[in-house]
Amino acid sequence: TDPLILYGQHFSSRLLLGTARYPSPALLEQAVAAAQPAMLTAALRRQSAGNAEASRSFWTLLQNMQTPLLPNTAGCHSVQEAISTAEMARELYGTDWIKLEIIGDDYTLQPDTLNLVGAADQLLRRGFKVLPYSTEDLVLCLRLVDVGCQAVMPWAAPIGTGKGPLNPLALRTLRERVQVPLIVDAGLGLPSHACQVMEWGYDGVLLNTAVALALDPVRMAQAFAAAVRAGRDAFWAGTMTPQDSAQPSTPVLGTPFWHQP
Amino acid sequence: TDPLILYGQHFSSRLLLGTARYPSPALLEQAVAAAQPAMLTAALRRQSAGNAEASRSFWTLLQNMQTPLLPNTAGCHSVQEAISTAEMARELYGTDWIKLEIIGDDYTLQPDTLNLVGAADQLLRRGFKVLPYSTEDLVLCLRLVDVGCQAVMPWAAPIGTGKGPLNPLALRTLRERVQVPLIVDAGLGLPSHACQVMEWGYDGVLLNTAVALALDPVRMAQAFAAAVRAGRDAFWAGTMTPQDSAQPSTPVLGTPFWHQP
Amino acid sequence: TDPLILYGQHFSSRLLLGTARYPSPALLEQAVAAAQPAMLTAALRRQSAGNAEASRSFWTLLQNMQTPLLPNTAGCHSVQEAISTAEMARELYGTDWIKLEIIGDDYTLQPDTLNLVGAADQLLRRGFKVLPYSTEDLVLCLRLVDVGCQAVMPWAAPIGTGKGPLNPLALRTLRERVQVPLIVDAGLGLPSHACQVMEWGYDGVLLNTAVALALDPVRMAQAFAAAVRAGRDAFWAGTMTPQDSAQPSTPVLGTPFWHQP
Amino acid sequence: TDPLILYGQHFSSRLLLGTARYPSPALLEQAVAAAQPAMLTAALRRQSAGNAEASRSFWTLLQNMQTPLLPNTAGCHSVQEAISTAEMARELYGTDWIKLEIIGDDYTLQPDTLNLVGAADQLLRRGFKVLPYSTEDLVLCLRLVDVGCQAVMPWAAPIGTGKGPLNPLALRTLRERVQVPLIVDAGLGLPSHACQVMEWGYDGVLLNTAVALALDPVRMAQAFAAAVRAGRDAFWAGTMTPQDSAQPSTPVLGTPFWHQP
Repeated sequence: TDPLILYGQHFSSRLLLGTARYPSPALLEQAVAAAQPAMLTAALRRQSAGNAEASRSFWTLLQNMQTPLLPNTAGCHSVQEAISTAEMARELYGTDWIKLEIIGDDYTLQPDTLNLVGAADQLLRRGFKVLPYSTEDLVLCLRLVDVGCQAVMPWAAPIGTGKGPLNPLALRTLRERVQVPLIVDAGLGLPSHACQVMEWGYDGVLLNTAVALALDPVRMAQAFAAAVRAGRDAFWAGTMTPQDSAQPSTPVLGTPFWHQP
Repeated sequence: TDPLILYGQHFSSRLLLGTARYPSPALLEQAVAAAQPAMLTAALRRQSAGNAEASRSFWTLLQNMQTPLLPNTAGCHSVQEAISTAEMARELYGTDWIKLEIIGDDYTLQPDTLNLVGAADQLLRRGFKVLPYSTEDLVLCLRLVDVGCQAVMPWAAPIGTGKGPLNPLALRTLRERVQVPLIVDAGLGLPSHACQVMEWGYDGVLLNTAVALALDPVRMAQAFAAAVRAGRDAFWAGTMTPQDSAQPSTPVLGTPFWHQP
Repeated sequence: TDPLILYGQHFSSRLLLGTARYPSPALLEQAVAAAQPAMLTAALRRQSAGNAEASRSFWTLLQNMQTPLLPNTAGCHSVQEAISTAEMARELYGTDWIKLEIIGDDYTLQPDTLNLVGAADQLLRRGFKVLPYSTEDLVLCLRLVDVGCQAVMPWAAPIGTGKGPLNPLALRTLRERVQVPLIVDAGLGLPSHACQVMEWGYDGVLLNTAVALALDPVRMAQAFAAAVRAGRDAFWAGTMTPQDSAQPSTPVLGTPFWHQP
Repeated sequence: TDPLILYGQHFSSRLLLGTARYPSPALLEQAVAAAQPAMLTAALRRQSAGNAEASRSFWTLLQNMQTPLLPNTAGCHSVQEAISTAEMARELYGTDWIKLEIIGDDYTLQPDTLNLVGAADQLLRRGFKVLPYSTEDLVLCLRLVDVGCQAVMPWAAPIGTGKGPLNPLALRTLRERVQVPLIVDAGLGLPSHACQVMEWGYDGVLLNTAVALALDPVRMAQAFAAAVRAGRDAFWAGTMTPQDSAQPSTPVLGTPFWHQP
């Protein structure tokens, strides 16, 4: 057994799933059943204008899935807004886990590099278990660990792009240098992307769009779950070193072996 | 069920494994047990100078694994040599399956682009089920299909390099244009590589070095088997289209949903 | 001086230009004046249906530019067709230079890997100076040299795509292994692409679409000419080896230098 | 004429050169003569332990080259240290230009994302013309502009690696979103890298290692200068749009044109 350990809590899965953009609540439920994720993340500020009934039933749905909930502060643009939202989430959902998102730019939805550490610091002091959504910036991630974050969640690419890791060298350097669990959050579009970051030693991945917008979200959820496990196994199995020149898998002699004395 | 179908025969796995370079026969056996491959490939011209005993026990080992055998013509440099070797393999192993390898360059171990079609044609006429090891060259692969090959096995990169797909555009064009099963053979180093080509619609992968030279070949065999299934599932599940700009997975409003009337 | 030498003839430029798809004959003329290419290539089979006048004036235009002409066999699909076209070009243009193109697939416009060597062989025997348009296939290119080609012209990507080198490893291996001049023909879209292949030691580039379809073909022709020279200079200047970890360009001490005794 | 304009000052070159790591002062001088850079950057804290004479003669060398000097704060790790160093440079070199470097991590030499804006702000208030060395982080670069920087200098890759642009998508997004001149500083290893970022619309490049460590630094300086101009020309000339499928540069008919009536 090789559990994912976050803030001392053990999780048997290394996949975290978002809950937005699914074609229907039923498909979300089935995808969760297929992937068996460690946690489900949901925004407090969901788009449900004028429809309290929809909100209540979504909340009931989340509770029924019996998967730990990770509320997030999606849509927040300032430290104060993120803290207020986190406090409301704690009250509403009854959990002190929070995925900290502060948007620094509305076009790329990039995390606010300059204010993330301060917000994380304050939330940790208020007793939250903070999972900060960050970029792959090494200095930023080291500071997040310095203030007490027991895990960091760098992006692979901007949210919803599905492009996969845009800067492999930076992500691999980050993995070498940061000693807490690292979960890739945002930008993965394919199971092979998830497998790849796990091979590099990342501890988990968080997905939403790539599953929710697949033609068959349930089968895609299952594919991502398998790819994450495959990548983790490969990490432990010790991958071969790429070679610049060809090497025969079968060294041969001139004489078929059964002709030899 | 979604079997791999080659020359009318159904296989439940989409992974083919080579049998060379394992640290020990026992680890080969365990890797095969872990991966449950469709076929095992073995060279007739194995390196076993002056050791008939070793050859006999390797042959016994292969038979005991109860996995269909795919003899190969590794080490052949001419059409005539490949045909002789295939005929010997048919007699020795009692199978008309043959993985056709003709080396055109000893440094890169590149298939002999110019002589492969002729060799495949002759072997097909002699009643072999030919799986030709080729490059990603579209014209070459189309001609192999023209002469009757019911599957083609392009490389991803030179044998033993583990670099993964060097020319994704060419491999994806090949997949679109060739109507028979395509199995990526050679050059894959990581489960994410295998997952990726399966996402593109490839029908299977053949591996040797990446498993045999892993620190833990058994766990790596299992990782590859899972990655191949994940990639196949993703192919059927219909992957999202990568986007150039960010898209929030959670569109948000200004008001938390439970505050709405 | 570092001339490009093809079949014993010296050229002061390492850029070859195509003559098709320009917005106007005047822009073609100005682009040629700006780039000062080694040769201009033109197809015998130009699209000029029912317009002999246009053909004649195009021919006059080419002659007036005082740049050596390299007729090509674009549009040919068989060895026989290519040979006939080459013979007609020799008669019409009064030159024994020929850029040999045999299309093996109409969608990718890939060279016909399997018939190129035979066609080159016949043309060489007929006294042509053959510049074969090929893929980056090492075995193919070695065979072209074997039959007597004194230069080979591999593609970087399919004609007109402008994608730049799709398979850098294969192109660099080709450069290491082939002893005759290599000119990248087709697929370059940007001056940086041209610069890159020259840095690898390629001897020249042939362009058409990237110049002809630029908004300002004349300035683009000039840009490509400068990029080719820059790449050649870099090749001779001996490029640094990329490093995996940072190295200060300015190693520093604790004390500003003017404070030191 | 298309000058580079920084803080209202016009420069006829778009190449800035570092002055460290050259094999000899003479080669530095010749490289500068060959490249005709806009500015020369030099660290105050140069490695010249116990050798005041060397320092003085280096300083004389810089003055004799008649190229504007851009002192830098290389080796500084805090805001206060950077400000002190900038003030000393202003006094020593008699210029209010400063390249602001604050190292946030000693292994990657990454700029200190979290303290760069504050340092830039203070230096601008003290009357410096600040060119901040930054990462490609969009939020960081926007904030640098917000506090008054009239140009920003993102890295392409860690200093001295020569890897070229590691995250093209982020660099291109940055170019689209930031309205002041952008100069790529650090990480370029080849003229083709410089050409590429200029094609994207970057306003200039700053180099050191790639020139200083070339086997022939003078020829390499010349190559970079030409590549920068080629990239700038290509930017203005309007590059073609890459295509996914091949397009014949010479559309052909069945009949050679001179056979037509």
